[in-house]
Amino acid sequence: MDNGASALPVTENFGQIDLLIEPEWIIPIEPAGLILVNHSIAIQNGRILDVLPSTEAQQKYRPNETMTLPGHVVLPGLINLHTHAAMNLFRGYADDLPLMQWLNDRIWPVEARLASPSFVHDGTLLACAEMLRGGVTCFNDMYFFPQASAEAAVRMGMRAAIGLVVIDFPSNYAADVGDYLSKGLACRDLWKDDPLLSFNLAPHAPYTVSDASFERIAVLADQLDLGIHIHLHETHDEIAQSLKQYGIRPLARLHRLGLLSPQFLAVHAVHLEISEIELLQKFGAHIAHCPSSNLKLGSGIAPVAKMKQLGLNFGIGTDSAASNNRLDSFAEMRLASLLAKGVSGDATVLDSHQSLHAATLGGACALGLESVIGSISKGKFADLCAVRLDDWQLLPRFDVASHLVNVATRNDVSHVWVAGIHKLKDGILLPIDGGILADTAEMWQNRILNV
Amino acid sequence: MDNGASALPVTENFGQIDLLIEPEWIIPIEPAGLILVNHSIAIQNGRILDVLPSTEAQQKYRPNETMTLPGHVVLPGLINLHTHAAMNLFRGYADDLPLMQWLNDRIWPVEARLASPSFVHDGTLLACAEMLRGGVTCFNDMYFFPQASAEAAVRMGMRAAIGLVVIDFPSNYAADVGDYLSKGLACRDLWKDDPLLSFNLAPHAPYTVSDASFERIAVLADQLDLGIHIHLHETHDEIAQSLKQYGIRPLARLHRLGLLSPQFLAVHAVHLEISEIELLQKFGAHIAHCPSSNLKLGSGIAPVAKMKQLGLNFGIGTDSAASNNRLDSFAEMRLASLLAKGVSGDATVLDSHQSLHAATLGGACALGLESVIGSISKGKFADLCAVRLDDWQLLPRFDVASHLVNVATRNDVSHVWVAGIHKLKDGILLPIDGGILADTAEMWQNRILNV
Repeated sequence: MDNGASALPVTENFGQIDLLIEPEWIIPIEPAGLILVNHSIAIQNGRILDVLPSTEAQQKYRPNETMTLPGHVVLPGLINLHTHAAMNLFRGYADDLPLMQWLNDRIWPVEARLASPSFVHDGTLLACAEMLRGGVTCFNDMYFFPQASAEAAVRMGMRAAIGLVVIDFPSNYAADVGDYLSKGLACRDLWKDDPLLSFNLAPHAPYTVSDASFERIAVLADQLDLGIHIHLHETHDEIAQSLKQYGIRPLARLHRLGLLSPQFLAVHAVHLEISEIELLQKFGAHIAHCPSSNLKLGSGIAPVAKMKQLGLNFGIGTDSAASNNRLDSFAEMRLASLLAKGVSGDATVLDSHQSLHAATLGGACALGLESVIGSISKGKFADLCAVRLDDWQLLPRFDVASHLVNVATRNDVSHVWVAGIHKLKDGILLPIDGGILADTAEMWQNRILNV
Repeated sequence: MDNGASALPVTENFGQIDLLIEPEWIIPIEPAGLILVNHSIAIQNGRILDVLPSTEAQQKYRPNETMTLPGHVVLPGLINLHTHAAMNLFRGYADDLPLMQWLNDRIWPVEARLASPSFVHDGTLLACAEMLRGGVTCFNDMYFFPQASAEAAVRMGMRAAIGLVVIDFPSNYAADVGDYLSKGLACRDLWKDDPLLSFNLAPHAPYTVSDASFERIAVLADQLDLGIHIHLHETHDEIAQSLKQYGIRPLARLHRLGLLSPQFLAVHAVHLEISEIELLQKFGAHIAHCPSSNLKLGSGIAPVAKMKQLGLNFGIGTDSAASNNRLDSFAEMRLASLLAKGVSGDATVLDSHQSLHAATLGGACALGLESVIGSISKGKFADLCAVRLDDWQLLPRFDVASHLVNVATRNDVSHVWVAGIHKLKDGILLPIDGGILADTAEMWQNRILNV
């Protein structure tokens, strides 16, 4: 190369690249608050090679494919920080019920009849399709038969953190805690080299897991360097029961059992005292905020404005389609922003850029994946989504970040890539045909109705 | 006719009708909780002539047009019970600000520069387009230059309740309260025979309207049989200011001034004590619940579960695109249902049928229009929307009402009729071209940015 080009970064693939995306705007999430105009994203081998002005990109790279997207904004694919993906098959099966009645009377009995590898595979497939269609590129799951979830995610080419569920009750999947753990770890052994998958230990909740089981989990998490993913402080009942049974609140119990760490992810965290937010923050732990599900089950509203203020990281999850009833991370992001303002009485909290951060990099940090996903940064995986913002329904438009949070919906997502592979193109889902998905859903609907 | 047919209702138009709609399901709202399967709606002269099993309808009527809609549910068009439609031009112009700062620093200065009949006409046109696209067939408005709002609504063929705004401040529109009232009543005189339009008196809020003005309004409302439509108990500040200035809370002040009646519609009503809910209920008054806007401006959450329990009627509004930031009545309906459960801690409150009622008949009652719209009942206007529920993203589906509230979005609305006239067909808006709407929005966006 001549001297004039020497200022440019020299890479193995200089010049020839797989894909160049030229949207009107890019919100890279890092640095915070930035909106790039007329920049391009160069992608090679599934990774982000470069982010640079489009005029420079056209000089510097010879892409095999160029996607020019006027009127579109590209942002990191959203991260759904808490799901039970297979439960897409229970979408709308049990409404208007409080958590324990919802579990005991509706969900658990039908799970006892139907939960199986094929149920989990098919439900997760539907969930992956729904999430990819809506701009979600990674989800953090917790369900029985995690190997079937892993298989469905990989089949769809979607990134997933697979929670290896542990519960002190027998199920179709496992007989006891030892069985849950050995099956979970066998699943991890089988899939651990897949670049799309990561794993965590997923004790269901304080009220379904014993101290002895938590102690085993703490040891394993430490030995295997695995995160812990647990429902925590979801309802007042959970806290009251813990006080009665253990004399302390659930978080204090987990603290005493040695579970807190920077790899600890508390899902829901609806009822947290200030000292508990401070405790979690001190450990560098994380929260999965699931606003729709918490409202729908009558659990309450998590204090995310206070978490933000005290520096406790949180991401956003949908929970399952049985308590939401959709896996719509755009709707959750908007709701998180609205609730933070409404509940704190302060309209300035959780602004659009902060909400986008929670739905992307906040989730990546919670999964320990912040070095590979969650922002549009050189070297990270090209997990991206493009949102069309020039439809007349969305106009006028004064601020792209605000429009993403407050105006756009998942239906405005036009393109999605996972590791640089096109999953959604002009609104069409590529990995699987919609007719197959509809047939699969209807087949299971009939089986559920016949239980 | 022969004897065999004599049991059928005999009408002037027996046999030949304008339109027969054959969806898979109908939710008529009245009777409450009913879901009709394989029924049809017969429409003649813009009104609902009959609702009957589809097999009977095919025998009984010869329609000029038949719409067969498998996989669709038809329900009454949604009623957006509180808007400032023209403010669609300010969509996303002022985010993350509390109410008074939002008004004083952002909205009012630019209104002072730009508000005009053409601004109001164009903004309302965009709002009507957005609402019709999303299944809304009627809106209750409050803005300057109401004659321009009326003109836009009629041009789009959309039903509207036009609030004749009164505020104790001069504006581009009117110099003083007498001027607001005379211009408002002149607008009503001009349009009062239009079958799409109705009118109400719209004093802006307790903090912007004096006792003397309220007294004039009360007299006029009584003389002309007009409803009253007012922002009320939106923020703590409003209540504190009233206590300071008048020694009583705003509702008590309006009560003392004689404004309460079955034609009184309080918008927002975020901060209501039990005794205030009981007072409003006793007068047969109504609430316009605007959940997104109340959250976004940090105002709080209205106690709708308590209103429901105490029998106070409420409908659902979006407020304006400047504080929402969309006129999406499906999103508001879902949020209303979720918030009622989450805030009351009771997952059983405001179930799907009750939420649908609020978004339709609840709004019609609040506008005094329950005899002509709000349910699919013989003799009412054929203001209807059809929602497609068989897309793979929405499956499985166990309950149609739950799916409408919890799963479907406005993007799933496929067809809309106002008084039997097609406004949306297979997702295409008929009254106006999208390109014109986009150009109009962009023109005003540039003018706002250049203020």
